[in-house]
Amino acid sequence: MPILKPLPKRLLLGPGPSNAPPAVLEAMSRPLLGHLDPEFIDLLERVKEGLRNVFGTTNAMTLPISATGSAGMETALVNLLEPGERVVIGVNGVFGGRMAEVASRAGADVTRVEATWGKTLDPSEMAEAIARVRPKVVAFVHAETSTGVCQPVEEIATAAQQADAMVVLDCVTSLAGQPVELDAWGIDAAYSGTQKCLSCPPGLSPTSFSARAIDAVQARETPVQSWFLDLSLLAGYYAGEKRVYHHTAPITATYGLAAGLDLVLEEGLPTRFARHREAAARLVDGLAPMGFVPLVDAADRLPMLTSVELPERIRSLGEGSVRARLLQTFGIEVGAGLGPLAGEIWRIGLMGENARPETVDRLLEALHEILD
Amino acid sequence: MPILKPLPKRLLLGPGPSNAPPAVLEAMSRPLLGHLDPEFIDLLERVKEGLRNVFGTTNAMTLPISATGSAGMETALVNLLEPGERVVIGVNGVFGGRMAEVASRAGADVTRVEATWGKTLDPSEMAEAIARVRPKVVAFVHAETSTGVCQPVEEIATAAQQADAMVVLDCVTSLAGQPVELDAWGIDAAYSGTQKCLSCPPGLSPTSFSARAIDAVQARETPVQSWFLDLSLLAGYYAGEKRVYHHTAPITATYGLAAGLDLVLEEGLPTRFARHREAAARLVDGLAPMGFVPLVDAADRLPMLTSVELPERIRSLGEGSVRARLLQTFGIEVGAGLGPLAGEIWRIGLMGENARPETVDRLLEALHEILD
Repeated sequence: MPILKPLPKRLLLGPGPSNAPPAVLEAMSRPLLGHLDPEFIDLLERVKEGLRNVFGTTNAMTLPISATGSAGMETALVNLLEPGERVVIGVNGVFGGRMAEVASRAGADVTRVEATWGKTLDPSEMAEAIARVRPKVVAFVHAETSTGVCQPVEEIATAAQQADAMVVLDCVTSLAGQPVELDAWGIDAAYSGTQKCLSCPPGLSPTSFSARAIDAVQARETPVQSWFLDLSLLAGYYAGEKRVYHHTAPITATYGLAAGLDLVLEEGLPTRFARHREAAARLVDGLAPMGFVPLVDAADRLPMLTSVELPERIRSLGEGSVRARLLQTFGIEVGAGLGPLAGEIWRIGLMGENARPETVDRLLEALHEILD
Repeated sequence: MPILKPLPKRLLLGPGPSNAPPAVLEAMSRPLLGHLDPEFIDLLERVKEGLRNVFGTTNAMTLPISATGSAGMETALVNLLEPGERVVIGVNGVFGGRMAEVASRAGADVTRVEATWGKTLDPSEMAEAIARVRPKVVAFVHAETSTGVCQPVEEIATAAQQADAMVVLDCVTSLAGQPVELDAWGIDAAYSGTQKCLSCPPGLSPTSFSARAIDAVQARETPVQSWFLDLSLLAGYYAGEKRVYHHTAPITATYGLAAGLDLVLEEGLPTRFARHREAAARLVDGLAPMGFVPLVDAADRLPMLTSVELPERIRSLGEGSVRARLLQTFGIEVGAGLGPLAGEIWRIGLMGENARPETVDRLLEALHEILD
């Protein structure tokens, strides 16, 4: 019996992965180069430049980490924090909580500033904690994938800068779907994933580090606990004149990311952002008559991920059964709630190539068939 | 200017990546499933079973870690070792040294047993260190990719078992190219990479953990320093009835691994191992008249990676220039020496699909054109 069997086609409207377009899938099937081949190093340089474009930065150390977004998170935190160092982390969902857990395992002294899931962090509470704790690092999530909340960045970043703290920003879901402006905002470390608004398969985490962040890594007194994610070692391969083997870079995934970035930059970021906003508006409008209510206030909603409280009809059918029917009968995946929101909400992603009216309509039609 | 441009075709005869065959590349271009889709979970189960076959094990916890081989190494060591715990590590090349570095960053008390690069570890020296140190873990490399040495496993594993120590084995280069028998040898944790004898792109690390290893992880007093590589958390997604989201698994890379395992198991392991042995013999025979001398004694040579000392002719041309000419003119990549062997040897890989007489002949012909 073969291990790889025919696989069904899905429309992926959960919190990621999103569908990858044909150009990205074709790129993934190209023959391999070696990771030290000058042609591959050239490709990496162009990928780094493309990532600078979407991150809104001139940071030299902008690179795809060789694993998914959670590894990007771990890279940022374990490099910038040494045991005993203080960090203030905003927690209003799964991913803020994950940051706190990762920082804690790195031995950092973690102060959590909590907000209700589905609400934004209160910038004045963050500022108060920053002024009180005087942390080395302030970390929070731009687009909280567990709730659909978009966090305004600038006020918190400014409070961190005034306290001379570095800022780590989780851009896993926001990158390439809404404005991300690392340099304008003064962000020192950011990470994302390829499987959201970049519309590539999961497997790489685009990251970017300011010169100040790199200086802080170089000034560490203790080694970074992870050899695999040590930025000083990674710099030996990803930057500089002589490229030194560290680990074997994921060649094929890099091809996919290159093709994905080409599509993003051809379309143009403002057009792409507008497309995400319009698709989300169409979704919310179409869901309202069925009784789905957005979890998040209109001003704080993400364009690429909409969380909706479930109508009574879906609850009585069993929300898991309805999601299973959407998947099995209609080939459409939507995301369940996590943590305290499990069973309460769905998370509907319209990310990258999927942020289009026809995608929205396909989901709405399927829901009408189930509910009418 | 596009980021993804046309890429040259290469014959990859370095220490990995090796070339991926068309079936694997085609698999990588299939449409994505979600990481919680029942169809993807089923595929993962079949991949795990395929990996058990090539690892020679019935270990339930046999899974592809979502990053390259070095992340597999880190997974094994940071899960099994807590700060202050003792580990004995055999070091006769880059990868034994890397193990020692990773274990040291995990806070372990590391005893290194050294051997000359190009020689095997002395089992009696390992046994003596094990008896003296009484470590929790003994770790060494089966196929040392930096030198081409094949380490006999059983004598060292037996010494570890007699001292009640767990055994970690690096199988990055050996897996699917020569016999690996985790259960027969009594190995507690092993890791590999997809880009060597499995002939898949780099990006996943097949790993396997014995029940005893999993018990040790569950009995830890301190959290695993890496959230991303924490086996207890990974088990929540990769095993059990209810699959809990941990990170987004690399869907496309898993398709590629599935296709690669299908090719391996269709061919049959004994046939595949013989093919590797025969290709290596043909290479050594063909290189001898040109003055290349194998670095490693015949009895200790790897079948899939041959390291050769360079003839005077190559040294006088500049070994780097000759490798560059092989790459640019003939499209053939071979590997340079690392560490003390830089400039002294080449490492020629005949891995997976590349372990064939026609591949050997293509390299030999190119070398004749350069040298004759």
